[in-house]
Amino acid sequence: MLTNYYTEQYRESLLHNVIPFWMKHSPDNTYGGYFTCLDREGNVFDTDKFIWLQCRQVWSFSMLYNMVEQKKEWLDMALLGAHFLQKYGRDREGNWYFALNREGKPLVQPYNIFSDCFAAMAFARLYQATGDKEHSNLAVYTFHNILERQENSKGIYNKSYPGTRPLKGFSMPMILSNLVLELEHLLPSTLVEQTISRAVHEVMDVFYQPELGLILENVSPEGHFVDSFEGRLVNPGHGLEAMWFIMDLGARAADQSLIHKAMNIALDILDYGWDKQFGGLLYFMDVKGYPPQQLEWDQKLWWVHIEALVAMAKGYMYTGDKRCSDWFEKLHYYTWTHFPDRENGEWYGYLNRRGEVLLPLKGGKWKGCFHVPRGLFQCWKTLKAIAGKEVVHG
Amino acid sequence: MLTNYYTEQYRESLLHNVIPFWMKHSPDNTYGGYFTCLDREGNVFDTDKFIWLQCRQVWSFSMLYNMVEQKKEWLDMALLGAHFLQKYGRDREGNWYFALNREGKPLVQPYNIFSDCFAAMAFARLYQATGDKEHSNLAVYTFHNILERQENSKGIYNKSYPGTRPLKGFSMPMILSNLVLELEHLLPSTLVEQTISRAVHEVMDVFYQPELGLILENVSPEGHFVDSFEGRLVNPGHGLEAMWFIMDLGARAADQSLIHKAMNIALDILDYGWDKQFGGLLYFMDVKGYPPQQLEWDQKLWWVHIEALVAMAKGYMYTGDKRCSDWFEKLHYYTWTHFPDRENGEWYGYLNRRGEVLLPLKGGKWKGCFHVPRGLFQCWKTLKAIAGKEVVHG
Repeated sequence: MLTNYYTEQYRESLLHNVIPFWMKHSPDNTYGGYFTCLDREGNVFDTDKFIWLQCRQVWSFSMLYNMVEQKKEWLDMALLGAHFLQKYGRDREGNWYFALNREGKPLVQPYNIFSDCFAAMAFARLYQATGDKEHSNLAVYTFHNILERQENSKGIYNKSYPGTRPLKGFSMPMILSNLVLELEHLLPSTLVEQTISRAVHEVMDVFYQPELGLILENVSPEGHFVDSFEGRLVNPGHGLEAMWFIMDLGARAADQSLIHKAMNIALDILDYGWDKQFGGLLYFMDVKGYPPQQLEWDQKLWWVHIEALVAMAKGYMYTGDKRCSDWFEKLHYYTWTHFPDRENGEWYGYLNRRGEVLLPLKGGKWKGCFHVPRGLFQCWKTLKAIAGKEVVHG
Repeated sequence: MLTNYYTEQYRESLLHNVIPFWMKHSPDNTYGGYFTCLDREGNVFDTDKFIWLQCRQVWSFSMLYNMVEQKKEWLDMALLGAHFLQKYGRDREGNWYFALNREGKPLVQPYNIFSDCFAAMAFARLYQATGDKEHSNLAVYTFHNILERQENSKGIYNKSYPGTRPLKGFSMPMILSNLVLELEHLLPSTLVEQTISRAVHEVMDVFYQPELGLILENVSPEGHFVDSFEGRLVNPGHGLEAMWFIMDLGARAADQSLIHKAMNIALDILDYGWDKQFGGLLYFMDVKGYPPQQLEWDQKLWWVHIEALVAMAKGYMYTGDKRCSDWFEKLHYYTWTHFPDRENGEWYGYLNRRGEVLLPLKGGKWKGCFHVPRGLFQCWKTLKAIAGKEVVHG
């Protein structure tokens, strides 16, 4: 693997292409917060502020400040979103809304607990940059609120009739397995260990189904397959993202067997989710091969591909398994020949099955300043570590 | 136009291809109701029962029994669904659930008022076949419940924060403009006239925006354009379906000017919604040309195309305008070369932008026994009337 070459490509792209794009086009210097609906050239086409994306951008700039360089402009950028979120982001009970208008008035109620997850991540990382207790308090309060709400996260907005077909979703344990590390410096270590151990158990022993070799998005409360649209659903990108969270947890616990298990699952997901006809990873699949209910099932999404790259880079770093470096190269080639916009910077988010641009946007309701910069950073640092090992062992 | 040839094609396809497909594959003779999740060959791939589709199939078979031939097997088919719906379809307040499992246990709460709309249609038509007062009572009760709930149809499941950006949707007046005629024989004539007049006003003076030449899916309570994802949304199929409802209302009121206005709007929608690159009608568009939030925006859907055919057939029947017959022929060619499955019968529902099959299903969560049979019936009868005129005038 041309490790040094790749390392430089990910670093260069993060610092000189992607981050400058968001620095230039996203700040709302009038009302605070960020514009995330940006067209091909970076022009703002909608001014609504989606809490997921506001929080995720605070996280990204805080992370860069903490991990790459203490640039004042990065911290200012993080604070631009944080102030807006502190002022307008929550209802009276402290739950995070889903969307605000440009001025900060609530548009969509707090039906979606992932707003809270991304808020906790954002303020925990921001606290590392600022040392401001208001930031850590907000992160910790939100984290505890998530733990309390997690069993019925949609609350009154839950449209499922109770009892007929109870299901639990993969997203919650998956995100907790990452979130708890994001807040590790703010939480008692017993809570951290307990949350990790529960999340790893849920992800690896409950949602991962050994007889299928895949992770299901929804299972019964007892962890069984449920033959319904929700129960048959597989989201390869979700599984791949979770597997690098788990590999990092395995490394943290020096648990080689957990690392290997997660790496092998990731390899199985890639085999399963790769589009044999047109290349790239499919968005949604039905585990029994039936038509999925998601009409966008065959599209190629930016986050799926960058998360897959991170998973393979980490798999290779932790194990040296050549299947990981082979997949990394295959994913790298597909990703870099399809997603980046060489003319105007950043990545397209949504391609059709053939890999053609489906929506000519750089940001929207769901794509913001998060997966691309986080993934580029993770690949850069992981590849650099691999290069270091290659020097040592080579 | 080869009117006689087309007439026969629509009749033949309805009676000898589409209806037999549903007669053969959809009845659940164990638990009652219908299977609607049918693969390419008609095999059942999921047994959930979605209230929209259960009701719509009761409607279709009742309509055929009333309007085509009093076949016992058609009435039995309608009653198979009706009994299931009467037994399991509603909550204690008489609101219709969104989905049940195969046995009839509720899966999804009554968050969606269109379940009620299709139930009212179904039982009103069924009453015409059976004369059973239970059927008419259910239709009338449900209709009044819809009128009461229409201002806040999602009730407690509404996730919009009140007041920030109030919007009203096109679906409600659109569906009422059709529903009221479906129940005309059961309602006091003052209520019928009042409902029609309100619905026509809303559709033609509020949601239709003359300066755009298009119908918007959502406007402010005062009927103004709202520059947001919802406010910019155009659904060409929705507009086309509404325009044939309005043309029928125009004919009923002998209002030539209303007919011409609706026909001209339909022609404008076709010009706007036609995919100049690959043919067919697009599913969703943004009126300002921005990327829509619906990832499935560029797909070609069965119901959009059959509703467009009905609109053009009626436009031509009512006005003789050659633009309608030209569009009918263009739509006819696209539709019949893309949607029907010559091998196993019925139509595919979902094609990608290029017109290739995206989901190999004949029925699913949203496609059932409704748009295809209703549209084939409407085209058959309309083309027959045109042929009659051609004989008279020719």
